[in-house]
Amino acid sequence: MESILDSEIREQPEVLARLLADGRHAEVAAAIRAADPRHILIAARGSSDNAARYAQYLFGIHCGLPVSLAAPSITTQYGKVLHYRDTVVIGISQSGRSPDVGQVLTDAASQGALTIAITNDGESPMATAAKYHLALNAGAERSVAATKTYTAQLTTLALLTAHLVDDSTMHDDLARLPQLIEKALDPAADIAKRAERFRFMNFCVMLGRGYNYATTFEIALKLKELSYVVAEPYSSADFRHGPKAMIETDFPVIAIAPNGAIFTDILALLTELKERGADLTVISEQAEALTLAAVPIPLPLDMPEWLSPIVAVVPGQLLAMSVAAAKGLALDTPRNLTKVTVTH
Amino acid sequence: MESILDSEIREQPEVLARLLADGRHAEVAAAIRAADPRHILIAARGSSDNAARYAQYLFGIHCGLPVSLAAPSITTQYGKVLHYRDTVVIGISQSGRSPDVGQVLTDAASQGALTIAITNDGESPMATAAKYHLALNAGAERSVAATKTYTAQLTTLALLTAHLVDDSTMHDDLARLPQLIEKALDPAADIAKRAERFRFMNFCVMLGRGYNYATTFEIALKLKELSYVVAEPYSSADFRHGPKAMIETDFPVIAIAPNGAIFTDILALLTELKERGADLTVISEQAEALTLAAVPIPLPLDMPEWLSPIVAVVPGQLLAMSVAAAKGLALDTPRNLTKVTVTH
Repeated sequence: MESILDSEIREQPEVLARLLADGRHAEVAAAIRAADPRHILIAARGSSDNAARYAQYLFGIHCGLPVSLAAPSITTQYGKVLHYRDTVVIGISQSGRSPDVGQVLTDAASQGALTIAITNDGESPMATAAKYHLALNAGAERSVAATKTYTAQLTTLALLTAHLVDDSTMHDDLARLPQLIEKALDPAADIAKRAERFRFMNFCVMLGRGYNYATTFEIALKLKELSYVVAEPYSSADFRHGPKAMIETDFPVIAIAPNGAIFTDILALLTELKERGADLTVISEQAEALTLAAVPIPLPLDMPEWLSPIVAVVPGQLLAMSVAAAKGLALDTPRNLTKVTVTH
Repeated sequence: MESILDSEIREQPEVLARLLADGRHAEVAAAIRAADPRHILIAARGSSDNAARYAQYLFGIHCGLPVSLAAPSITTQYGKVLHYRDTVVIGISQSGRSPDVGQVLTDAASQGALTIAITNDGESPMATAAKYHLALNAGAERSVAATKTYTAQLTTLALLTAHLVDDSTMHDDLARLPQLIEKALDPAADIAKRAERFRFMNFCVMLGRGYNYATTFEIALKLKELSYVVAEPYSSADFRHGPKAMIETDFPVIAIAPNGAIFTDILALLTELKERGADLTVISEQAEALTLAAVPIPLPLDMPEWLSPIVAVVPGQLLAMSVAAAKGLALDTPRNLTKVTVTH
């Protein structure tokens, strides 16, 4: 399975180590504090939108700040501009070139709101439209499916949060990230072997909650992009409000269940789904959850929960790549897609 | 196809006419204006969360107000309370009994934020926790899948918006709603006939955007609840950022494409997907979109775009019910579900 995708997945410890050495985040966090925002609005699409979902929990849990995900079509399609009073606006994009996301930054900046762009390209329109640019420094990402830029986006948001609350434990946690990602790559060969059993899987449900709601969306997106599997992401709470009806014997469910505040809730749902005959793949470091699974995928022990999305997505990336390989698909150039997606 | 579900779907013109006669919305809109909020936060789950998605466009396009959808687990699972300074908090729930959604209202009220509950049960915990309660007055909803309470929630939000901007054209538009819903019910027999062809459909993608992003989610939820089809909702913009890779010959796509600002964007995507061989079902009043479809489902002419989600969901409800009937499933009591879902 030699592919650019595979090498970019394996580059992640190094990319994150480089990012952690970047000193820019303290300054931007100070600017956010000075702005004293009532809420944070994030504009993003695709994988970057999943990074925004992580931010909703980071800024909510650590700073008490509500986060909204922008609906750029309000401006680009309906021609109306939101009021960004007392709002910090963050745009996230690998390429920095999606016009609809860029428009949100431009409008917010023109109203005097504090604007921050998080991109992998300092020359991009978004990077120049925002007051602050936080570079991902991930190196060129050549595979169409984003991997290292996604974990770099998450790490950027985690760094901002650690500076916002000025907590040394959080900085210590962050320093361990590259090593945790290394460990998360360990089961790669096992995952590749087990992926064969998904050769004829056409659809599945992904479950997670809280911090890892984002991970659920991101692994589902990788499965869709790479293996063309209709993978639908759900929080365990939302899943109970209707979609649970879909579950029958052999229905494929992939769950992200790291230790932490959410674990009991997810474990209860997984136990129920197993009783209903679902086929479970579980990404967790907890034996209680792993033993429920037909395919258990272990996570490194001693992950701080708040950083677990950056670690737990890695075996998901490996799984999506391996399922695509088992299906004989092109790993670096999925059909119908291009690297930079332009939406208005 | 005699079922409570069918009769509740057909009750909608009458439910909305009753709701439009309720005078409470002007008073609540005045309270929102007086609060001068920087943003609106909405807590909801399931169908009610889809109503919240509609509110994001209503309040954004007509009032310039950013809307965020709450992540209740921040409080119920992680034990942290958000700062609701300069924020209006709305809780939406058919039953008014989901503890996680209720907690958001309770916390916001205790901080002095303006709180509004939109429920079908004035005696429920949420109705009493909020400063204002807007009753749906939909009568008891006995089918597990929400239909009339969903359109009543949307109409409540539309009424609030019309009062917020104090626009007589919008009130005239609203007055036409019951009649438009009557017309949207017209193709019921045709939809029931065509639904046979979905007997063996296991998954599909739902596409829409803007105002009807909500409709896309709601019809997908009905398909999951009633017919156990893995129906994944997407905005046409997000769909281009990755998931488009899934599309191949015969891939089932259901699109909501009413006339308006979004139409050109959706039409372009549908044209591309048809070229790739997708099987299209299109809900629209526009011949250009309907002719692309293997299954065209007509909407009433002369719908005001801003109210189109309340009308366009109706044929989707009929479709989900008819597909479930074609699959021989229980229409009023989907497996695994109960009417009131309690999540923490």
